[in-house]
Amino acid sequence: MAQNTNNKINLSMLLDFYEISMSASYFDFKKDAKAVFDLFIRRMPENRSFFVAAGLEDILDYLDNFGFDSGSIEFLKKQGIFSEDFLNYLSNVKFSGEVWALREGEIFFPNEPVIRVIAPIIEAQLVESYLLNTINLNATIATKASRVAMSAKDRGVYDFSLRRTHGVDSSLKVARASYIAGCNGTSNVLAGMKYKIPVVGTMAHSFVMSFQNELESFLAYARTFPKNSILLVDTYDNLKGVKNAITVAKELEKTGFKLNGIRLDSGNLVKLSKKVRKILDQAGLSYVKIFASGNLDEYKIAKLLKAKAPIDSFGVGTNMGVSEDAPYCDVIYKISEVTDAKGEFSPTMKLSIGKKTYPGRKQIYRIFDDKGMFAKDILALEDEGVRGAPLLSKVMEKGKSIYLSPPIEEIRKFTQDNLLRLPEKYKKLNKAYRYPVVVSQGLKAHTKKALKTIRQRSM
Amino acid sequence: MAQNTNNKINLSMLLDFYEISMSASYFDFKKDAKAVFDLFIRRMPENRSFFVAAGLEDILDYLDNFGFDSGSIEFLKKQGIFSEDFLNYLSNVKFSGEVWALREGEIFFPNEPVIRVIAPIIEAQLVESYLLNTINLNATIATKASRVAMSAKDRGVYDFSLRRTHGVDSSLKVARASYIAGCNGTSNVLAGMKYKIPVVGTMAHSFVMSFQNELESFLAYARTFPKNSILLVDTYDNLKGVKNAITVAKELEKTGFKLNGIRLDSGNLVKLSKKVRKILDQAGLSYVKIFASGNLDEYKIAKLLKAKAPIDSFGVGTNMGVSEDAPYCDVIYKISEVTDAKGEFSPTMKLSIGKKTYPGRKQIYRIFDDKGMFAKDILALEDEGVRGAPLLSKVMEKGKSIYLSPPIEEIRKFTQDNLLRLPEKYKKLNKAYRYPVVVSQGLKAHTKKALKTIRQRSM
Repeated sequence: MAQNTNNKINLSMLLDFYEISMSASYFDFKKDAKAVFDLFIRRMPENRSFFVAAGLEDILDYLDNFGFDSGSIEFLKKQGIFSEDFLNYLSNVKFSGEVWALREGEIFFPNEPVIRVIAPIIEAQLVESYLLNTINLNATIATKASRVAMSAKDRGVYDFSLRRTHGVDSSLKVARASYIAGCNGTSNVLAGMKYKIPVVGTMAHSFVMSFQNELESFLAYARTFPKNSILLVDTYDNLKGVKNAITVAKELEKTGFKLNGIRLDSGNLVKLSKKVRKILDQAGLSYVKIFASGNLDEYKIAKLLKAKAPIDSFGVGTNMGVSEDAPYCDVIYKISEVTDAKGEFSPTMKLSIGKKTYPGRKQIYRIFDDKGMFAKDILALEDEGVRGAPLLSKVMEKGKSIYLSPPIEEIRKFTQDNLLRLPEKYKKLNKAYRYPVVVSQGLKAHTKKALKTIRQRSM
Repeated sequence: MAQNTNNKINLSMLLDFYEISMSASYFDFKKDAKAVFDLFIRRMPENRSFFVAAGLEDILDYLDNFGFDSGSIEFLKKQGIFSEDFLNYLSNVKFSGEVWALREGEIFFPNEPVIRVIAPIIEAQLVESYLLNTINLNATIATKASRVAMSAKDRGVYDFSLRRTHGVDSSLKVARASYIAGCNGTSNVLAGMKYKIPVVGTMAHSFVMSFQNELESFLAYARTFPKNSILLVDTYDNLKGVKNAITVAKELEKTGFKLNGIRLDSGNLVKLSKKVRKILDQAGLSYVKIFASGNLDEYKIAKLLKAKAPIDSFGVGTNMGVSEDAPYCDVIYKISEVTDAKGEFSPTMKLSIGKKTYPGRKQIYRIFDDKGMFAKDILALEDEGVRGAPLLSKVMEKGKSIYLSPPIEEIRKFTQDNLLRLPEKYKKLNKAYRYPVVVSQGLKAHTKKALKTIRQRSM
């Protein structure tokens, strides 16, 4: 029971139609060709200086299970443009390639490969759309959430975005990515269950409104949850709401319990939180915490902290859950090597105006200063012998995952460690700085040579 | 085979934790209470004057299948704060209420209920998060896509957003909502299969780059798809690309076929499309269509048409797929009636600053002018006897859907008919006008009375 009927899907069919049509033509003309693809982000969105990597766990699961079921082949057949041979081939295809990737929680910058795929060209092409979709969402949200969490410093931040995220899948990924990025929990119960993230909640206005009056609703809630009540005080009037919360706190004290907190959800949060803190303290309730919500984001939280608003934690919804000021990254998937008729790999690159790419198999080498802080990255050929810590590691070999995704708490800790090593200026909320990503001599020379060859070939 | 392991989920657990905790307290204190909830959007995003309703099909499916499986109950038990009695109750709960809703494709405005739920208060509360999430995404995208489709006038518009939508579920809903709103198809194969939407595709740069040179790649593709080739010409140089496409078109002609089109994906699309159209026409290829893509949205398409760019159709991705300029709607779910101790319904409303709501059971009555165009809406009590076409209809009774969602083509046609009846000024891309939604005398009086009662009760 209770399984919704519309949520069993074959993710392998989640691709742009051209992945299939190109594959049909590869099948006709270069069935055995192999290729190398890089997935990377072309540029930073406004106000951002770094990205947080996330989404690898889903990608490995997807690649491990890649393949088309008979219903899918039937659907493709009905398009009437694919050969029987090709459809037969498709019905048996699995992902057999090699994958290199940044770990989840790694900090990265534009033009640095997040994922590198080395596989038969058809397989590498077929997985493009899902890989892009997954990295785009996860990196967008992990990056946004890291900003929100950092803006709150030592205060807690909770993901409240479920009602405004883009659909079901996004709500889950947002809860996970924001937890990895430094948030402390989520209101999303399914995400909590699926990913082992702490789930939290207070009460809604409807609860208060369903009782004869506010006090009655607060008392009811506190009786059900004597240890865990956070009372929403703004349904009718914030200050009267606080008065009712105090009455409840005193009632709870009589039975040996303590009111957990109150939630402010509208009005001027600076003035209000200061006033409310004072009223609570004067009532001997300095242990009652103040929780705030209502259209918050990193910019507003930073202002609240600057104005010394005595708020203990924040519920952040919409603006984080859709990354409102930058709802996507310019993520792309570009071929960088392909085998020729003899089966030898040769570099390839795009020359479109403003869209040039680097050919070859690349590695990112991170250089730290003597305090262990990030100093610069070098984008180089993988076999160039550059010093520095290589960031891409092999996660899949011959189509099988060889990387065990760490427990979420470990990924979260890894992210926090990385953010600590990122110099402060790159974490500014309102201004972007360009972190130095240096292109190595070897990669420059390789690019120049490839450019020459491609120009000659295309004559 | 080929089913990914991570996509079977119980949507009923997709809720904010407070829906469960409030329910536990309702269970303790007002287990048998019934309530009426309205789902509506509080205000228009910038530059918009109307919304397009979408998402009802998913909502009915969800409500029809609502319920918690044993794993979910087990998870809730582990939270250690819910009583055995309540968990038993939850394990048997189904949605047994009545639902009123706008049809998909209906045009609506702020404060007009999109959905009204009348149900036992616990059930009505538990379904809140999913209903909000679903209407938010679908209305956001259907509205955005209607703008994009209208900006292109008689030219085709195709959804290319899969790689940048927020996750899997969103990519599907975007393809469906944008088709309903007037787009002509999608690149998303799974969406095409699931919703019977035309699927389309051209080729990617990687295809071109995987061959020795561009001409070779074009010839290969045209041999595989002699009837269906659209050649991407900007990998190396747009005009050289067009020259190669002409060579291919001439080759195809020899075998009795016609090149379908070329795709422009970078550069100045006005200048380029004019130049390319001329070159193609001079080569006797006036039948070869020009397809354009690359960071397009309604604003850019309108400019292209204004500049008379001879583009036949548009592929629109990211900006439509995430509704980049307005990635969410201010959608809320508010209680408007609740039963008292005697089981009688009484109105309730929220008084928070700037967040007041209307109590009671409401209906939207649409008034048309003598040409059949929308003139104004009246927001009234449902039993008030107002003239006009009522927009909310009963779609669910005693927990069972009594509404059969029409075929997608019919919903699409209904949307187009509605958009034609919406006066031009509300369709402007760059400026918003407030469509008249008049609050009826009856609703005003009801609100005033409710306000007085609530203020008295809360003393």
